[in-house]
Amino acid sequence: MGSTWGNRIRISVYGESHGPAIGVVIDGLPSGIAIDEEKIVKEMQRRAPGKQVGSTPRSEADLPTVLSGLYNGRTTGTPLAMEILNTNTHSSDYDGFTVTPRPGHADYTARLRYKMSNDPRGGGHFSGRLTAPILFAGAIAKQILKEKCGVEIYGHIIRIGRISAPGWEEEEVPVIPAEGAFAQENTAVASRMKEEIEAAKLENDSVGGIVEVMATGFPGGIGSPMWDTVESSFAQLMFGVPAVKGVSFGSGFEVASRRGSQNNDHLAFKDGKLRMTTNHGGGFEGGISNGMPVLAQVAFKPTPSIGMEQDTVDLDAKENTKIQIKGRHDACIVPRALPVAEGCLALALLDAYMGKGE
Amino acid sequence: MGSTWGNRIRISVYGESHGPAIGVVIDGLPSGIAIDEEKIVKEMQRRAPGKQVGSTPRSEADLPTVLSGLYNGRTTGTPLAMEILNTNTHSSDYDGFTVTPRPGHADYTARLRYKMSNDPRGGGHFSGRLTAPILFAGAIAKQILKEKCGVEIYGHIIRIGRISAPGWEEEEVPVIPAEGAFAQENTAVASRMKEEIEAAKLENDSVGGIVEVMATGFPGGIGSPMWDTVESSFAQLMFGVPAVKGVSFGSGFEVASRRGSQNNDHLAFKDGKLRMTTNHGGGFEGGISNGMPVLAQVAFKPTPSIGMEQDTVDLDAKENTKIQIKGRHDACIVPRALPVAEGCLALALLDAYMGKGE
Amino acid sequence: MGSTWGNRIRISVYGESHGPAIGVVIDGLPSGIAIDEEKIVKEMQRRAPGKQVGSTPRSEADLPTVLSGLYNGRTTGTPLAMEILNTNTHSSDYDGFTVTPRPGHADYTARLRYKMSNDPRGGGHFSGRLTAPILFAGAIAKQILKEKCGVEIYGHIIRIGRISAPGWEEEEVPVIPAEGAFAQENTAVASRMKEEIEAAKLENDSVGGIVEVMATGFPGGIGSPMWDTVESSFAQLMFGVPAVKGVSFGSGFEVASRRGSQNNDHLAFKDGKLRMTTNHGGGFEGGISNGMPVLAQVAFKPTPSIGMEQDTVDLDAKENTKIQIKGRHDACIVPRALPVAEGCLALALLDAYMGKGE
Amino acid sequence: MGSTWGNRIRISVYGESHGPAIGVVIDGLPSGIAIDEEKIVKEMQRRAPGKQVGSTPRSEADLPTVLSGLYNGRTTGTPLAMEILNTNTHSSDYDGFTVTPRPGHADYTARLRYKMSNDPRGGGHFSGRLTAPILFAGAIAKQILKEKCGVEIYGHIIRIGRISAPGWEEEEVPVIPAEGAFAQENTAVASRMKEEIEAAKLENDSVGGIVEVMATGFPGGIGSPMWDTVESSFAQLMFGVPAVKGVSFGSGFEVASRRGSQNNDHLAFKDGKLRMTTNHGGGFEGGISNGMPVLAQVAFKPTPSIGMEQDTVDLDAKENTKIQIKGRHDACIVPRALPVAEGCLALALLDAYMGKGE
Repeated sequence: MGSTWGNRIRISVYGESHGPAIGVVIDGLPSGIAIDEEKIVKEMQRRAPGKQVGSTPRSEADLPTVLSGLYNGRTTGTPLAMEILNTNTHSSDYDGFTVTPRPGHADYTARLRYKMSNDPRGGGHFSGRLTAPILFAGAIAKQILKEKCGVEIYGHIIRIGRISAPGWEEEEVPVIPAEGAFAQENTAVASRMKEEIEAAKLENDSVGGIVEVMATGFPGGIGSPMWDTVESSFAQLMFGVPAVKGVSFGSGFEVASRRGSQNNDHLAFKDGKLRMTTNHGGGFEGGISNGMPVLAQVAFKPTPSIGMEQDTVDLDAKENTKIQIKGRHDACIVPRALPVAEGCLALALLDAYMGKGE
Repeated sequence: MGSTWGNRIRISVYGESHGPAIGVVIDGLPSGIAIDEEKIVKEMQRRAPGKQVGSTPRSEADLPTVLSGLYNGRTTGTPLAMEILNTNTHSSDYDGFTVTPRPGHADYTARLRYKMSNDPRGGGHFSGRLTAPILFAGAIAKQILKEKCGVEIYGHIIRIGRISAPGWEEEEVPVIPAEGAFAQENTAVASRMKEEIEAAKLENDSVGGIVEVMATGFPGGIGSPMWDTVESSFAQLMFGVPAVKGVSFGSGFEVASRRGSQNNDHLAFKDGKLRMTTNHGGGFEGGISNGMPVLAQVAFKPTPSIGMEQDTVDLDAKENTKIQIKGRHDACIVPRALPVAEGCLALALLDAYMGKGE
Repeated sequence: MGSTWGNRIRISVYGESHGPAIGVVIDGLPSGIAIDEEKIVKEMQRRAPGKQVGSTPRSEADLPTVLSGLYNGRTTGTPLAMEILNTNTHSSDYDGFTVTPRPGHADYTARLRYKMSNDPRGGGHFSGRLTAPILFAGAIAKQILKEKCGVEIYGHIIRIGRISAPGWEEEEVPVIPAEGAFAQENTAVASRMKEEIEAAKLENDSVGGIVEVMATGFPGGIGSPMWDTVESSFAQLMFGVPAVKGVSFGSGFEVASRRGSQNNDHLAFKDGKLRMTTNHGGGFEGGISNGMPVLAQVAFKPTPSIGMEQDTVDLDAKENTKIQIKGRHDACIVPRALPVAEGCLALALLDAYMGKGE
Repeated sequence: MGSTWGNRIRISVYGESHGPAIGVVIDGLPSGIAIDEEKIVKEMQRRAPGKQVGSTPRSEADLPTVLSGLYNGRTTGTPLAMEILNTNTHSSDYDGFTVTPRPGHADYTARLRYKMSNDPRGGGHFSGRLTAPILFAGAIAKQILKEKCGVEIYGHIIRIGRISAPGWEEEEVPVIPAEGAFAQENTAVASRMKEEIEAAKLENDSVGGIVEVMATGFPGGIGSPMWDTVESSFAQLMFGVPAVKGVSFGSGFEVASRRGSQNNDHLAFKDGKLRMTTNHGGGFEGGISNGMPVLAQVAFKPTPSIGMEQDTVDLDAKENTKIQIKGRHDACIVPRALPVAEGCLALALLDAYMGKGE
């Protein structure tokens, strides 16, 4: 039951990169919510390959087809199923990786886990392509949250390789990058980040990064500690994406360096409204939302597929060997991963929100 | 269903800090495993208050009583229930926090969530005391993992406030601090960390930190991507502890700064054995274990209870006010939190391991 | 994770018949509901041994102690834990059943499942005693349902051995037996049922039966088909009781003999209120409640422990042998099982009701 | 999360009767099992409309398309997704049922539950058509069980209206009806059952029935009481089918009429092999399998759609009215439901079997 997630909302993701289709079944959605499918397609294009700096030239339509759960443009309350047909696949590029596993990929571990029966083509079920159905589910969740309680979700890139930018921890109303632009509001920093990606690309290499996502308007009092909380659910969800190596909230790992007197978020009435004076907690105390913006960071490792020759083994011959990966790869997946992280936040928030009445 | 966790093993934690008892029911354990209860008590003493640098003087026996699930010293395979009676409680210290919430605590959010019906005494169900049953479950999991597949679990402190120490990412066989000593193997760094805690204490303040936990001997091929994996389960579990603000694996957030060529763990046969040449992935590729040591980091915020006067609000009068927290508090919870993080790793590993046959 | 049940409410039952204690943790209850503990004790006494016709003379206080989740007489919304200490146990009566298993008991199957490590004393985790914590959880659920939406739960015995009585399928307002009396409203039938039990007892034998439970006042529109429904949840819960061999709703197995024209429940406005003209569906269409009384039947097999000599095997000697079971046993568990079935209905209803807002 | 079922195997069913497609995602299957797709299609044809006595003339190809989870004819171990495109739909037949609900259908309850947003065409997500994906999942489970431990699954019809036939409770090796024939081994009884269906059909009426399913070869020692058992899982699964009103095991409701001395299954060595001398328990004691054939019964109500005029209400006008249902309907769904019940048994057995190593 590995590719199933959620407590009240349940998503069940399926598909292999080079199989007939990938998709998702979303169970437990509230009924009667109008869904703007055009908006969802736009959201998915933010993740689609071939559209961002340094992304793979595999250009797919990635058009989602809804098979159930929508009627007259509204959610029915019964399972919403979506599929994306796979086209434009070059399966021969992937031959042999079960014998000489690519470093940083699941080739070797999947071989152990599935006893050589899994579909290796294009990474199979481990392909980054499988984030498309997650993003779709997240885009649905975004629209429901917006309608149910006015939540808005934002995201930006706060690190690419050696280049970093400040997060939204201190400020309540962030400056959001223009639609379609590189997702970093400081254009000078954005330029340097893009250069960092281009430099890696030129050297047949790749580079990692960190995204930060934020939700405004999420009401206080949501979440059921200890583990049915937005923090636990979002972390669980994000670590399902193979490239993710770290998840944090609010000030994240920075809290470790602080004194309590610096880190505590203090309560204050301001213009008759209760707020925290800072948002180091990222919107939660004790796992329950406090009405502040929800703020989280996710660290992505550099794309493991690089054009340079690398050390690996031949599992059949049981000897060390070299591998050079051909095919189409992103020099940096972070720009494409950002909407996925936003979608995961939406899913975690909606799942918790649905438990509100409990 | 907030305080229930697990896929194959299920733990259900209960209790309030100043109620009659706290405890846990562990369901789904394998039968016939010999349990050394003395070892478990020792493990729990590592977390018990009053024993570490800067910890609260509330000195409790914290003795666990097993009510079911053990017979003739072995697990029965039916639910194992454990309780710890609460004694030595000073409930009057906590009066009024539902009206003037303590900054950094769940007083305000719990009031929203439970509509003023939760038990506020000593933090109620949000108390750090609730990590004792988690640790107990973890200590059971440790012994089962040890017997089932020889897993050993280690932990050390890699940051206290401004003082940091290197992690175990690069090395396979770490130097482990002596039992009972401060959990940092470099004694010079350990001294400075202890000073950092003492300094915070002297100023009626507190300080945060980061722990790193490691498991050796965990077999490859374990985990069911996308979400039934050690990474997702451990993160979900750790974020249930209110002070945790970040969780990462292997090189953690550091991966974001790297090139793929630097970060990829390469496969190599060495003395006929397949290993990765580095462990930046922390023991996983694509969510499945690769046979390398499992390595994770957890960031804890500074104890929010500090002796200094702080800003807060009076929720009844709807006006800003000040609060000075009395009572017994840790200047730094990190040393006591370390065995809890180790226990959570054991639980996540065992839960995944039990799915091995699937 | 065998002894854990529920979707929104989660109960985790633990304990062995002759271990230190049995109990339950109930997670996910709404906060702020006043609980009348005296009423709960009364409910539990309906199940307690030594109080009913033909029940075992093992007389236990069976007093539940609440360890968490209640504060100032109201649910806190955090886990509610309850324990019952075991006293008055005669463990020697049970020696040897792992070698010569009792027919109709789990002695043999538990030996296979737990590889001889489970606690066999008094049936261990398989003892009927373990229904006490379920009943406790059900009694809590009853009170919450009553407060939340005015639900009342009733039960009666509709079969003991060869003696049967009509169910409540056709009538809306059933005649309820007086408190403390045998749970069959027709006193002549009740007498014959009691005689049936006494006759079995005199012959060192036992007898089975069927109970029917009903809930009035449960609102329509509750349940999430296909499987998150009262019908699926109640059946799942009841089959956890070892003696249960059948569960049905409304007209139950009788529907199989009918024509559609006889069986369909027709809708009609009566005094401006929408009702079904019959209740063959037992309160559900398509898994969703329709506002009619919820009606279910549960079949219990005769107590397998009987005083007569029976055929069995010696698993060590691998030969056929005889067994004569000593100790204290119910000639008929049905009267004591009735409140358990009522409690299970309350749990299934509350679990579904909590999903109302989703 | 209503249409999701399972503990280790997780099925997620989606689709509406007249939407683009129906289907299922099956997560958690073991890897490397060869699947005979032709056999699955044959199995599905047993349920397909237009092929059985008294079934609806809606004749659909009902051809399943596998989208993921199979590679080179074997299960990959990652989610197996299947879809069936909907064709040959007459949506206009179903207009207006949200205003004048059909008796015995979910029209009214779905209106309450989904606030008039669900897809009413052809019964939407409540259509009997949704049993096709369940059957598909069951057919996969059958093949895996066969390969893993030699399990064979059988089924027959033991009641149609007033005509009944004996079950397989007493005999170990049942006589199985020839493939394609009416599923009752006594041809005289089979004829009378078919006449019972024809008689109902002629009168524009319908008739209910009971099926019995059996699994041979399932090993002893499987299941985790109290609730992670075949009995609880099968009952939960079957009650997800709207027409099911009762589920029982072994001797079922008949146990209620018996003495313990009659009902207990006695253990005996016979030809060196341990068996029960009878199978009243249907293969389980205390929720754990005992190695005997697994035996269960399921009661189906008569098809609620009948050609006769029936009483109902006009929910808009708030007045009583009449309804006459046009369209294509089964006079008896029992023959088509039989393979679904067999499939559900296979799913419940496989789900439990996968927990064997735990």
